[in-house]
Amino acid sequence: MGAKCCPTWPYTVLNLPPAIQLLKAVLNQLPGIGPRSAERIALHLVQSKEDKVHQLVHAIQEAKERVALCEQCGGLTESQPCPLCSNPQRLKELICVVVKPTDILNLEKSHAFRGHYHVLGGQISPINGVGPEDLQIKSLEERITKNLVQEVILALGSDLEGDATSFYLAKRLSACGIKVTRIAQGLPAGSELDYADELTLERALQGRRVIQHD
Amino acid sequence: MGAKCCPTWPYTVLNLPPAIQLLKAVLNQLPGIGPRSAERIALHLVQSKEDKVHQLVHAIQEAKERVALCEQCGGLTESQPCPLCSNPQRLKELICVVVKPTDILNLEKSHAFRGHYHVLGGQISPINGVGPEDLQIKSLEERITKNLVQEVILALGSDLEGDATSFYLAKRLSACGIKVTRIAQGLPAGSELDYADELTLERALQGRRVIQHD
Repeated sequence: MGAKCCPTWPYTVLNLPPAIQLLKAVLNQLPGIGPRSAERIALHLVQSKEDKVHQLVHAIQEAKERVALCEQCGGLTESQPCPLCSNPQRLKELICVVVKPTDILNLEKSHAFRGHYHVLGGQISPINGVGPEDLQIKSLEERITKNLVQEVILALGSDLEGDATSFYLAKRLSACGIKVTRIAQGLPAGSELDYADELTLERALQGRRVIQHD
Repeated sequence: MGAKCCPTWPYTVLNLPPAIQLLKAVLNQLPGIGPRSAERIALHLVQSKEDKVHQLVHAIQEAKERVALCEQCGGLTESQPCPLCSNPQRLKELICVVVKPTDILNLEKSHAFRGHYHVLGGQISPINGVGPEDLQIKSLEERITKNLVQEVILALGSDLEGDATSFYLAKRLSACGIKVTRIAQGLPAGSELDYADELTLERALQGRRVIQHD
């Protein structure tokens, strides 16, 4: 803590107590928590009342214990199958394929999809040594056959790995005789052309649609 | 989660599993953690490996268990008295009075003080019902007498409560026959006049000092 800039300082400079330093380091690993936030939270916690700290620890343990992946779709759930998979109002003939469990939450917020989901668990990435056999593709094929699925919508990333995985899946799943589509790429809603990069504009142009009018 | 904007949506919109919602709410109470960060961290935790979650829980519990307030100065410590109070190189005749334990950490980072500290535990605030009897003033007076303290430096806030508390302490402690000073108010280091408010400039002017030259 600044000891370098003042090597001759003859008085012990107070460091954080070791237990707080450790807590800070662990908190610093959480997403979006930098060293300053981590220190602030660590100092807050050691000065909080016992029951507040217990509440936090309990909430973490409970969540970790209760939440698992749905055996059918791979989404986060506390019951098996998850509320989505067990909802009779959702269309079984329609499956939206996503990369990770939290993608389902984002798509659900859009209120634009009424079918089922399937979490792949990753994308094909030769650099990272991830091949098709590492993804939940077999279980997807089983669901397609079992539920007489008519269309699979690929909602993967719009990056290179998303492209590769979508291309691979489109080819493999078409063999099942079903329609395979991919969500559109283009301008984000509420945006201007000023803020779009070339690739986004290229894909927006390629994906152009006829305007429906009466 | 957006249900308002679409009251006729006939399909159950997936909410976060209850245990994640609870964890999110608890995390949201931590300093600097808004609802979005809280959700991100909660989702990260339930998807983390068991040992990572255990590491976090353990670090929180250890820190809470080991860290206490120093019986002498009121700072955060794992040993009694704290490393600062037990350091023979620090001057016992000089006490810097601060509001809360973390103020000590900030002052130590400045490398500008080589005496002892004393945590008041608050500031006089009639609105919040905090009077002098709620603060660690008696123990401060005892330390002053016991350690033959010559100067007490008040490093309290520069707000109304800090002013009131400083004024009160200056009056009360002067009765012990010691020098009572208050840290300077003025321009923050590296700042320009453009960014200073009127009160800061007024106090900077009042606190002006003769430039030392040979």
